[in-house]
Amino acid sequence: MDKTELRVGLVGHGFMGVVHSHAWQTVGRAFDLPVRARTAVLCGRDPARTADAAHRLGWDEHVTDWRDLIARDDVDVVDVCTPGDSHAEIVTAALAAGKHVLCEKPLSNTLAEADAMVDAAQEARARGVRSACAYNYRRLPAVGLLRELVRAGRLGEVRHVRASYLQDFFADPDVPLVWRMERHRAGSGALGNLGSHVVDLVQHVTGLRFTGVSALTETFTRRRPLPGGGTGEVTVDDAALLTARLDGGALATCETSWAATGHRNTLRLEVGGTLGAAAFDLDRLNELRFHDDAEPRAERGFRRIMVTEPEHPHVTGWWPPGCAVGFDHPFTHEVRDFLAAIADDRDPTPSFADARQVQEVLDAAARSARSDSAWAKV
Amino acid sequence: MDKTELRVGLVGHGFMGVVHSHAWQTVGRAFDLPVRARTAVLCGRDPARTADAAHRLGWDEHVTDWRDLIARDDVDVVDVCTPGDSHAEIVTAALAAGKHVLCEKPLSNTLAEADAMVDAAQEARARGVRSACAYNYRRLPAVGLLRELVRAGRLGEVRHVRASYLQDFFADPDVPLVWRMERHRAGSGALGNLGSHVVDLVQHVTGLRFTGVSALTETFTRRRPLPGGGTGEVTVDDAALLTARLDGGALATCETSWAATGHRNTLRLEVGGTLGAAAFDLDRLNELRFHDDAEPRAERGFRRIMVTEPEHPHVTGWWPPGCAVGFDHPFTHEVRDFLAAIADDRDPTPSFADARQVQEVLDAAARSARSDSAWAKV
Amino acid sequence: MDKTELRVGLVGHGFMGVVHSHAWQTVGRAFDLPVRARTAVLCGRDPARTADAAHRLGWDEHVTDWRDLIARDDVDVVDVCTPGDSHAEIVTAALAAGKHVLCEKPLSNTLAEADAMVDAAQEARARGVRSACAYNYRRLPAVGLLRELVRAGRLGEVRHVRASYLQDFFADPDVPLVWRMERHRAGSGALGNLGSHVVDLVQHVTGLRFTGVSALTETFTRRRPLPGGGTGEVTVDDAALLTARLDGGALATCETSWAATGHRNTLRLEVGGTLGAAAFDLDRLNELRFHDDAEPRAERGFRRIMVTEPEHPHVTGWWPPGCAVGFDHPFTHEVRDFLAAIADDRDPTPSFADARQVQEVLDAAARSARSDSAWAKV
Amino acid sequence: MDKTELRVGLVGHGFMGVVHSHAWQTVGRAFDLPVRARTAVLCGRDPARTADAAHRLGWDEHVTDWRDLIARDDVDVVDVCTPGDSHAEIVTAALAAGKHVLCEKPLSNTLAEADAMVDAAQEARARGVRSACAYNYRRLPAVGLLRELVRAGRLGEVRHVRASYLQDFFADPDVPLVWRMERHRAGSGALGNLGSHVVDLVQHVTGLRFTGVSALTETFTRRRPLPGGGTGEVTVDDAALLTARLDGGALATCETSWAATGHRNTLRLEVGGTLGAAAFDLDRLNELRFHDDAEPRAERGFRRIMVTEPEHPHVTGWWPPGCAVGFDHPFTHEVRDFLAAIADDRDPTPSFADARQVQEVLDAAARSARSDSAWAKV
Repeated sequence: MDKTELRVGLVGHGFMGVVHSHAWQTVGRAFDLPVRARTAVLCGRDPARTADAAHRLGWDEHVTDWRDLIARDDVDVVDVCTPGDSHAEIVTAALAAGKHVLCEKPLSNTLAEADAMVDAAQEARARGVRSACAYNYRRLPAVGLLRELVRAGRLGEVRHVRASYLQDFFADPDVPLVWRMERHRAGSGALGNLGSHVVDLVQHVTGLRFTGVSALTETFTRRRPLPGGGTGEVTVDDAALLTARLDGGALATCETSWAATGHRNTLRLEVGGTLGAAAFDLDRLNELRFHDDAEPRAERGFRRIMVTEPEHPHVTGWWPPGCAVGFDHPFTHEVRDFLAAIADDRDPTPSFADARQVQEVLDAAARSARSDSAWAKV
Repeated sequence: MDKTELRVGLVGHGFMGVVHSHAWQTVGRAFDLPVRARTAVLCGRDPARTADAAHRLGWDEHVTDWRDLIARDDVDVVDVCTPGDSHAEIVTAALAAGKHVLCEKPLSNTLAEADAMVDAAQEARARGVRSACAYNYRRLPAVGLLRELVRAGRLGEVRHVRASYLQDFFADPDVPLVWRMERHRAGSGALGNLGSHVVDLVQHVTGLRFTGVSALTETFTRRRPLPGGGTGEVTVDDAALLTARLDGGALATCETSWAATGHRNTLRLEVGGTLGAAAFDLDRLNELRFHDDAEPRAERGFRRIMVTEPEHPHVTGWWPPGCAVGFDHPFTHEVRDFLAAIADDRDPTPSFADARQVQEVLDAAARSARSDSAWAKV
Repeated sequence: MDKTELRVGLVGHGFMGVVHSHAWQTVGRAFDLPVRARTAVLCGRDPARTADAAHRLGWDEHVTDWRDLIARDDVDVVDVCTPGDSHAEIVTAALAAGKHVLCEKPLSNTLAEADAMVDAAQEARARGVRSACAYNYRRLPAVGLLRELVRAGRLGEVRHVRASYLQDFFADPDVPLVWRMERHRAGSGALGNLGSHVVDLVQHVTGLRFTGVSALTETFTRRRPLPGGGTGEVTVDDAALLTARLDGGALATCETSWAATGHRNTLRLEVGGTLGAAAFDLDRLNELRFHDDAEPRAERGFRRIMVTEPEHPHVTGWWPPGCAVGFDHPFTHEVRDFLAAIADDRDPTPSFADARQVQEVLDAAARSARSDSAWAKV
Repeated sequence: MDKTELRVGLVGHGFMGVVHSHAWQTVGRAFDLPVRARTAVLCGRDPARTADAAHRLGWDEHVTDWRDLIARDDVDVVDVCTPGDSHAEIVTAALAAGKHVLCEKPLSNTLAEADAMVDAAQEARARGVRSACAYNYRRLPAVGLLRELVRAGRLGEVRHVRASYLQDFFADPDVPLVWRMERHRAGSGALGNLGSHVVDLVQHVTGLRFTGVSALTETFTRRRPLPGGGTGEVTVDDAALLTARLDGGALATCETSWAATGHRNTLRLEVGGTLGAAAFDLDRLNELRFHDDAEPRAERGFRRIMVTEPEHPHVTGWWPPGCAVGFDHPFTHEVRDFLAAIADDRDPTPSFADARQVQEVLDAAARSARSDSAWAKV
């Protein structure tokens, strides 16, 4: 009861703002932490909608200018859930004001902005101010177990990674043009939007970095209906295929598409090494399939582990063994790990530098795609 | 903002109390309801532990006697999460006091108690006081879809039901004796504990009632270690096998066991009719497999539907299409449906009478098991 | 090249006759055996059709009376693929004539016939004449591996068996009446036709015998069209549900149906013990799923073993590791094991006595079904 | 009985020779063809081993020089199952001698040889002499169904293809050096050995050709033990990753590796279009998963079709619905289609020109891999 209270200010109440609200509200019920988070201030641009969201999502107060939020003395943490092009300004200001910052992915739309954010984070860190980028899928128990298996050497030396993130939301050519399909606002299409998750996960799970990449992108639907009639040009990719090399000689093949009929939101990751292999599928997010080559030949096979035991990462705090988590739980884990790091006076992960490096990989992929798939070093 | 507020009092803060707390706290964020629930008073027997739980789980106040809770004017809903042998007393008192009541399953340990509760609910209903029993698995989206398919006639006339609820928690003979293994406290073992879910789900999903049953029960481990040393007798079943007939001529085979190595918490349900079949598996709770015999022969097969679309029951309010729910979400749906029924002045489901009928089926099964599996009418 | 040649006579060239012909023709190519089988004489009732079949299926000669076949000195083995009601007469005559006999399942339509066949086999055995009943599914590699795991103690003491054989061939009420639906010709319906496979497999795989059974049967479609117009009565069951006890205290639940929409030919078998569990599914006949409870808790799960390695039963002789077998391969294994036993002067399996005991179990099930599911001892 | 007999001569009795022998022996039993194949002459280099193989595999005669085989008047068909570097010489001689030729894949080790073979085939065709290359996986029923779905427009316009062929045979660095690991004998490693199947299948199933490719290859184990002691250099790739474009704008990602721990012999192929998607997995070769976007949103999902119905390609002739085929059955289908084409006086498929084009794609991939993954046109 006498725990330190950290007062959180959240910028943005779109989809991500809702999920983060849920996480901030839930974390204290699920996990026993040395600090307590209070959902103090919600920030949005439209006064009425922000007031309504604050009420519904359980925030004490609300403001309409993020500068006001940052100016307050009674806010300790700023959680940034706005579109990527506003991240750099809000985040650097918040860090300068001494607020710990959790920033949604992708870190920024350009490497230049990312550089500034990394610098700001580095400077803030010297003052004990913490920052992290919110790659939610890292905190899935099954992803955590996959990482542990790699780190424990159970897969041996990594040789093969195959990763894909397939959606079908824009498969239909009649879906109207939205800002995510415009290069000047979104940077890229499936490559950045889905590929950032893929690249981060591959590196997080294997502990290896992309060293080079060849890429191929395509836009299947080049013109789409505009809300007001007529059509507009799609200036980003619908799909991107990557082949890559990782530190230490592993090969990776990555595919992203938001025009992949049959796949609503399917993120798959398989890692194979000299001693074993393991595979994750977001459609079955409580499972990890693991093949241990140390088993006798006649008994080898991918086993389906239900990653719902107290021995598994992130699971303690939730329900009894055998009970599944859903899409939102990793966000609560993210917030928990962020709060625990602040309480312990250490850096939460992934750092802005980690998140910037993901964008470097995507940048190299975009370069390769523009150069007839020629190899691009990261 | 000017919604009617219903003030909730929760009795019990064990596992179920925690999940229900989560549901009451979450429901207003996830769903737009005509009323608002306030987590007002938590009731537990131990003052310190109750205070701590109330704080952690977000309840405004706490008391240590459920009679005090019921005596309060500022409590509108009583949620009963205590062990089954206390349900009848608390629930009937709460209903008499004009509180709407949500009661955890199983409704009671004996049919006599259940009768009293059904009577009390019937009497309260005349006064506009509502009641329901909390069979959580009914509110899984995939279970809801299975029910919809049956009701829409997509499976035709139901012929075959196969249902099982398998756990491994007591497979190990070294697991110490706990109260659930004692007949005088728990009534029965896997039969009641797991079988109640199975029977309720089968009936809920098919819309058909069990008319008779043959059963076989077994206790694999007859003596177990006592905490203080020595061993104690297990007086309930570890496993129960049922064959049954449903209204209209369908056959059902049901299996429950808590000594089923390999299955942590596996609840499976398949319904087959003259026109199709559908199968649910709690290990993959966001999926429903559906076989439509109306497809051309060369294209028939069980299809795996990800039950994560806005078109699916209970999904709206959560995350975008393709995003999974977990174990806790159906509890939020339960609370939502309960609140919506109160707001609309109609009866929530399942009623106490529905829950009592499940126990009748289990009672018949117990009778059959004691009589060499001879047929027992329900 | 100087191997002893065993000359085979086959009675019947229906579906089973075709598969057996394939097996006799293939066995010498696939396996290195001490004896050589020659497809010498085919026997069928219709001269033209038999001549045609003999030519197409690769038999040297053909006859139209099985007595002629048995009378020949140059036939060493008689393979009986006729309907069950003719087995006893042909088999006992063949054994009396000193022919080794392979007889299709079920052994006979009545226990009295089976008794006579068991006696004949016993008597012939004293003269070095061998006999076996052809339960093909025993010889699937995955079934063989499941049995090996049980025998090696990898599952511990068996507690749970769940087995089902589901087909949909007679789900449609417009399928005309055929002889299999008439009690006086077929004995029973799904219970005997599919249940014989189930009972044999359960016992074969676990090494345990059924000691008692409770059963429930149903006929969903009681009248069916006759080829010449009008309708006829179905006098056998469409489905049969069994609960049973095995030696040593294990429980079994078995389901058979030929009106199970969604399942074309689905035979499933799962065995769970104190140390592990394993599951087979005929739809994926090259796989066995195995859960080893000796693994660390965080790594447990059913693993999918591709049963296509030289270390696996029956696989050597076929294709490289990773290559699947199909429906027909176990028939070749059956013939191989039969020939090897003859060459080694030992008894092939399953014996007629084994096959007779399966029918005893089904007989007990039929008794129970007629007595309101009351327990029937085997 | 009075069918034309085609007398077959088979060159080579290694693994492929054995499977082809099985196919030639089986085809007449399984399928009703207008011609009859006789397993007339087997050709191998070692007299004793060839004699033994001929006896075991059921060939009437045997020779040790393929020239003698071709010189015979009583041989109508030559089936070439020797290593790739001998194909061109044998095949062109056989065609010149007027024999119909079935040649194992890959067609040849070099494009120059392939050119010669295509020319020879073209010239022979004018004389009514037929030829085909033996890509066995084309004749799997599930692959055939996938192709039919594409052709019927059920997937719409193809956009995404993902294909992989993963094996683990050479994952262990202690596996000794064999000829397949030497460039001068094998041409390439996984790229050609496994990639030829992948490229052929992708094109066969989609009806689209590769127009360009980017590739990345790697050799994980660069030196391997020699049988006589010491080590030798591996001069081919262990793994190859491809990204590609197909006619009409579809993208393809292909992966091949024989160092893929966890995958014994796993060939996967998924095709996604504007209206649906379908996926095949060699580990479950009797299944096709099909997603039909024309279904209502709430009922969409990949359905598992058991490709074992008479309505499915190649199935008629085998066993009743629901019965699986194995690795060897497609070889029988191959031989059947080859014989039927000869009987009907039309060209069997795939033609030598088709097979040559596969090698062009692989050639382009090898070029790209040597040029930092730069795009290579086919």
